[in-house]
Amino acid sequence: MKVGILGSGDVGQALGRGFASRGHDVMIGSRNPDSDKLKAWVSNAGKVASTGSFADAASHGSVLVLATLGTAAEEVIDLAGPSNFSGKLLIDVTNPLDFSKGMPPGLFVGTTDSLGERIQRKLPEARVVKCFNTVGNSQMVDPTYRGVEMLICGNDKAAKAEVTMMLKEFGWNGAIDAGGIEGARWLEALVPLWVRIGIALDNWNNIFKVLHE
Amino acid sequence: MKVGILGSGDVGQALGRGFASRGHDVMIGSRNPDSDKLKAWVSNAGKVASTGSFADAASHGSVLVLATLGTAAEEVIDLAGPSNFSGKLLIDVTNPLDFSKGMPPGLFVGTTDSLGERIQRKLPEARVVKCFNTVGNSQMVDPTYRGVEMLICGNDKAAKAEVTMMLKEFGWNGAIDAGGIEGARWLEALVPLWVRIGIALDNWNNIFKVLHE
Repeated sequence: MKVGILGSGDVGQALGRGFASRGHDVMIGSRNPDSDKLKAWVSNAGKVASTGSFADAASHGSVLVLATLGTAAEEVIDLAGPSNFSGKLLIDVTNPLDFSKGMPPGLFVGTTDSLGERIQRKLPEARVVKCFNTVGNSQMVDPTYRGVEMLICGNDKAAKAEVTMMLKEFGWNGAIDAGGIEGARWLEALVPLWVRIGIALDNWNNIFKVLHE
Repeated sequence: MKVGILGSGDVGQALGRGFASRGHDVMIGSRNPDSDKLKAWVSNAGKVASTGSFADAASHGSVLVLATLGTAAEEVIDLAGPSNFSGKLLIDVTNPLDFSKGMPPGLFVGTTDSLGERIQRKLPEARVVKCFNTVGNSQMVDPTYRGVEMLICGNDKAAKAEVTMMLKEFGWNGAIDAGGIEGARWLEALVPLWVRIGIALDNWNNIFKVLHE
């Protein structure tokens, strides 16, 4: 499978490494595809890993991952070319974090909208699934904590089923489906709480597990 | 310890039963303190249990619990008499759920305010601790799932320490302190997600556990 990842920060690199480790052909898209940090990422991730512009990565992938800062998400989609998303599964990992009042952050979308919904509205032909946004990048692939289900949402049931299979490949115990893309309001709102818990515990590997029968 | 509980729904009754079972002298305040359901509650909860008006209960308790519907919280405080809250620990269990668009609910406070903050602003002399609002009433006392820490927040550290001791009495593994009362924005935002998960799993005993080292 060809995977295009938009965003070269810790999250993009962690997911890129994860897909490459499972044998997928991964390209990370970045404003600076020749940076030292991305050269290091390519040499660690192996021969099926490459870098390019945002448009290169969006064109490369049959599956796309949006892993930019929340504030940059819509601009990066413009740079990548909205037509490159048509019909594709887009895994949206972004969070609309507002650091304008310092730490811990708030959200810049309120509770009657979400970044997931904005992205789905901007890309009506893409099959957007919100996923991975509620966990730290250290836990996204081969999580320390086993037996946990990822919280996801999105409008396309088949896309959510594909993501659930990928999650199982990555060491997750599947997913809990929080409904349509408007569920992103609450998946995103989990993140300011996660930051507060990280501060309280001085531990950024903490993770929410839903216990149920 | 004398406990006054404002609100006689499932949450108020569950917490009232919990405090009474630990030997505390509990009064539930209600608009209808002589209703059949409260007579049944008193006879189940034992001889240290009673009912009264909101003002009776607020006057009775050295510790108070606010367990009304979110939409009724501020009116019930007015009925109970704000001076009855001065200097007291107030455990705020309310959620600002907005069902105006049906199920699942949203929140009527946005993400730059919370019901916890509104209550603390309305009662500046009370020591408000947000607690129990993120879990279903079946799990509040003697939870099925052991080893879980409750998410709490509030401005008064001593009040949070008192609540943490009560939580241990109730079978919880203590608490995680999500910071000042503004943390209520995110504890409250967990509830629309909890409802969505309840719908997905068709299980209302589900509970969030924070896994950490």
